[in-house]
Amino acid sequence: MNSFKVSLAQFSPFVGNLEANVQRMIGLANEAKQQNANIIVFPELSTIGYPAEDLLLRPSLSKRTASAFEKLAEVKDIVMVFGFVNQADSGARYNSAAVMKDGQVLGIYNKQNLPNYSVFDEKRYFAEGHQHLVFEYLGHKFGVLICEDVWTLESVQQLAKLNVETVLVLNASPYEVGKPQHRVVTLKELAKQLNLNLVYVNQVGGQDDLIFDGTSFVVNANGEVVLEAPSFKEDLFHVEYEAELKSFKAATKAPALDTIAEIYQALVLATRDYVQRSGFPGVILGLSGGIDSALTLAIAVDAIGADKVQAVMMPYTYTSQISVEDATEQAKRMGVTFGIAEIHPIVNSFMQTLHPFFGNSPADATEENLQARARGTLLMGLSNKFGNLVLSTGNKSELSVGYCTLYGDMVGGFAVLKDVYKTIVFELAKYRNSLEDTPVIPERVITRPPSAELRPDQKDQDSLPPYDVLDAILYAYIEEDQSLEDIISKGFDRDIVTKVIGLVDRNEYKRRQGAIGPRISSRAFSRERRYPIVNGWKAGV
Amino acid sequence: MNSFKVSLAQFSPFVGNLEANVQRMIGLANEAKQQNANIIVFPELSTIGYPAEDLLLRPSLSKRTASAFEKLAEVKDIVMVFGFVNQADSGARYNSAAVMKDGQVLGIYNKQNLPNYSVFDEKRYFAEGHQHLVFEYLGHKFGVLICEDVWTLESVQQLAKLNVETVLVLNASPYEVGKPQHRVVTLKELAKQLNLNLVYVNQVGGQDDLIFDGTSFVVNANGEVVLEAPSFKEDLFHVEYEAELKSFKAATKAPALDTIAEIYQALVLATRDYVQRSGFPGVILGLSGGIDSALTLAIAVDAIGADKVQAVMMPYTYTSQISVEDATEQAKRMGVTFGIAEIHPIVNSFMQTLHPFFGNSPADATEENLQARARGTLLMGLSNKFGNLVLSTGNKSELSVGYCTLYGDMVGGFAVLKDVYKTIVFELAKYRNSLEDTPVIPERVITRPPSAELRPDQKDQDSLPPYDVLDAILYAYIEEDQSLEDIISKGFDRDIVTKVIGLVDRNEYKRRQGAIGPRISSRAFSRERRYPIVNGWKAGV
Repeated sequence: MNSFKVSLAQFSPFVGNLEANVQRMIGLANEAKQQNANIIVFPELSTIGYPAEDLLLRPSLSKRTASAFEKLAEVKDIVMVFGFVNQADSGARYNSAAVMKDGQVLGIYNKQNLPNYSVFDEKRYFAEGHQHLVFEYLGHKFGVLICEDVWTLESVQQLAKLNVETVLVLNASPYEVGKPQHRVVTLKELAKQLNLNLVYVNQVGGQDDLIFDGTSFVVNANGEVVLEAPSFKEDLFHVEYEAELKSFKAATKAPALDTIAEIYQALVLATRDYVQRSGFPGVILGLSGGIDSALTLAIAVDAIGADKVQAVMMPYTYTSQISVEDATEQAKRMGVTFGIAEIHPIVNSFMQTLHPFFGNSPADATEENLQARARGTLLMGLSNKFGNLVLSTGNKSELSVGYCTLYGDMVGGFAVLKDVYKTIVFELAKYRNSLEDTPVIPERVITRPPSAELRPDQKDQDSLPPYDVLDAILYAYIEEDQSLEDIISKGFDRDIVTKVIGLVDRNEYKRRQGAIGPRISSRAFSRERRYPIVNGWKAGV
Repeated sequence: MNSFKVSLAQFSPFVGNLEANVQRMIGLANEAKQQNANIIVFPELSTIGYPAEDLLLRPSLSKRTASAFEKLAEVKDIVMVFGFVNQADSGARYNSAAVMKDGQVLGIYNKQNLPNYSVFDEKRYFAEGHQHLVFEYLGHKFGVLICEDVWTLESVQQLAKLNVETVLVLNASPYEVGKPQHRVVTLKELAKQLNLNLVYVNQVGGQDDLIFDGTSFVVNANGEVVLEAPSFKEDLFHVEYEAELKSFKAATKAPALDTIAEIYQALVLATRDYVQRSGFPGVILGLSGGIDSALTLAIAVDAIGADKVQAVMMPYTYTSQISVEDATEQAKRMGVTFGIAEIHPIVNSFMQTLHPFFGNSPADATEENLQARARGTLLMGLSNKFGNLVLSTGNKSELSVGYCTLYGDMVGGFAVLKDVYKTIVFELAKYRNSLEDTPVIPERVITRPPSAELRPDQKDQDSLPPYDVLDAILYAYIEEDQSLEDIISKGFDRDIVTKVIGLVDRNEYKRRQGAIGPRISSRAFSRERRYPIVNGWKAGV
């Protein structure tokens, strides 16, 4: 029996780019060797990245995977455990892990439990495996599991019964609030219960709307957590097994983040990866003087640097002087490129052109939408001309009830706050301000009542219930799937609940055309909440 | 042994609206009784409609289903076979069929084969059944299957071994070109092979991007097709079983449609159902003088009537006089509301506002997009003011390569030609013109070279290969999943193929924000082709 060292590659793959991923994996393996590691463990499906969606169905994938294996085979003197797509001769496709040493494949494991709920569609792509994988190395007995497997008691028990000492778990487990803590708390109990050491390695990085937080960890069979990697950071972490003590030695312990800091960092990572991996030189956004765009700007700057961020204020008749001042001030404090473009002439030209059609019909949301669409078109013009990605600034409360303009403030390629309720937007803004002596977001942006400023003296609360009430109703309906009557029975006003739920249902068409944005909740729109647009379901029944 | 009569309810459910569906089902059952039918068969999941997506996860569904059963139980003197969501006490949810007579449930069948590929996600919602259902009525032995089951030989054989005489198959089988014919041809062979009569009842109607064509049929055990219901039409069809002859008597035979007529009718149905079930009073679209908007206009008129259709021509400097003439002429011929709105002042105001930012940078696609977005905003303004749905007019060739402007010509709630390649657009326009002595689409719209008219003397073919070449490459890449090298080896130019595939890959973000539109192919965008936006896959490898 020997002591040994395991490296956890908390790796951020580029989805679909097997060549780049393999190259990086080889680099990490060599780095691990320099640290005298005996084994390196990569995340689930590390060669292609997660989720690769219908790229998994492309016929050339097996050729690409074969070429990945050839390259990985050149790494010597370390055991590599990595994820790949296993295309069997039968035609079946598996979500698999390979154990490779000195170019030899010592074993292959096919994932047994395929999640097909929430954001997962693994049964669209993969067949289920039916066999465990156990291997001995340096006198130690290892088992291998992939993500959902470790949450399935029978699959872990299978390994315990075979006297496995340490289970290597390859994961691509997406972030949601509280999930990093939940994994550790639950799996340390499991480790104790089954008397197994667990080495949990998670993918890190933003991929479209999903954020992988990493937060890899190692727990001993007695339930002691010996390694906790930081969240949202790509790196290699090491842990040593002491044969005498029959356990892993205490190693890195990243300090736990509080919820708001965790969400903030998640959004920064998601934004950075989206922008950089899409190849944009920078971003542009409309800065209104309101809190959503203020927070989005701060996140953008923290994600890619002030020199790559352009903000534009686009005032109209209903824009208050305060808004212009605050936007200007924030742009200055953050050091981003800033410009002002008045939209009066544009809105007027639309109004004049539409006059023969509109006649004397009274003003309504149409005229408000024209302002928003003039701004959206200006942002897209600047984006088209200089190549920067437009960040959309709407929050989850607005998108839920459709308090936003399609092709107006909804334009953009990435909606940073898409899954963030307005009440959390406030918390995030305060958190960001707390990080520096001079708050980057002017205090007034946080304290004044929210307004879309699309008509005189407009306040959000003229059209919507107060945000604490609105968000509570939305959370109950969206995240908790509660019915109209359930929610009313919690003490909310019947008319308000009926109105809010009706708005959520009616605005599916708007959300469907909105930009993607990072998922931080347990029920994000689009990939996770799949509602028909044409839909006769009546919430009240 | 008795003779008996079966009614096939080629039914168009309103997805999610169980109350309305059940009421209509009761009406159809009563109508069948008046025709002396002994049995009425409804489509798959007829109570809630298909696909109900995440509405299937709502906790109140079981209560709603129970109430549907109560109402259906009031129907007497006819056997009803209908689809419903069966929520077992174990918590498992099944895609099921009930056999009900005089308020008694004679049997329940849980679908055994759950499709989870292409447009289907049934494993997200349902557990697999493991038992057949056979029932005797009027001395005849019936079996029940649901959709995918009848394409799974073992499931049908199971019934044959039990000496079932007639299999009632409940379906929600979405349309694609050639599918109606394929079903009949394949299943009549199966009927012969297993010596079973098949009664195949399919849902009809548009549901978001899916079209259900109906085209229900009955085939005798000798392979003789005795009933062929028309496609795209909701109705009740009847077939009589003659005990003496031990077979069904010949009944309705709708004439077969040729491919182009079939596609045209599919698009009309999809448009009508989307508009009407979303509750829009009418539609509006931009009429450019080009063939895409001309065809979209014709489909809209055929779907909901000229009195509910508004067309707007929005000329700019690069709009030819021919375009204005042809658009005006078509609007007149079709009898729709028509208006002209020049966009010069709007485009100028955008250019002036952007000038301080653009400086003297040369004109590029930015300026073209401004024209398209001015038009999009005008259409949305008219839509907001009067409530009509904007129909988007882009075709599949354009959307594939991104030859369209996000928030410009892409605005709209329903993209009628989204899954129709440009070469088919021409065929459809000619087909529509062939239906009347005076062609509704001016001949010149079909014969002149396509142009977006966004810069002087622009032709589509300046930027794209000729449409027959483009569409062939797109079809190979999208529908057939061929690789770059596969396509080149068919004789296409390497540079052109590389360019086209690159454009398809890069424009996923644009398509993701586009309107939904009816699926007619075997690989439509969105629900069926799920690609990551951030994506490092290189087609050329």
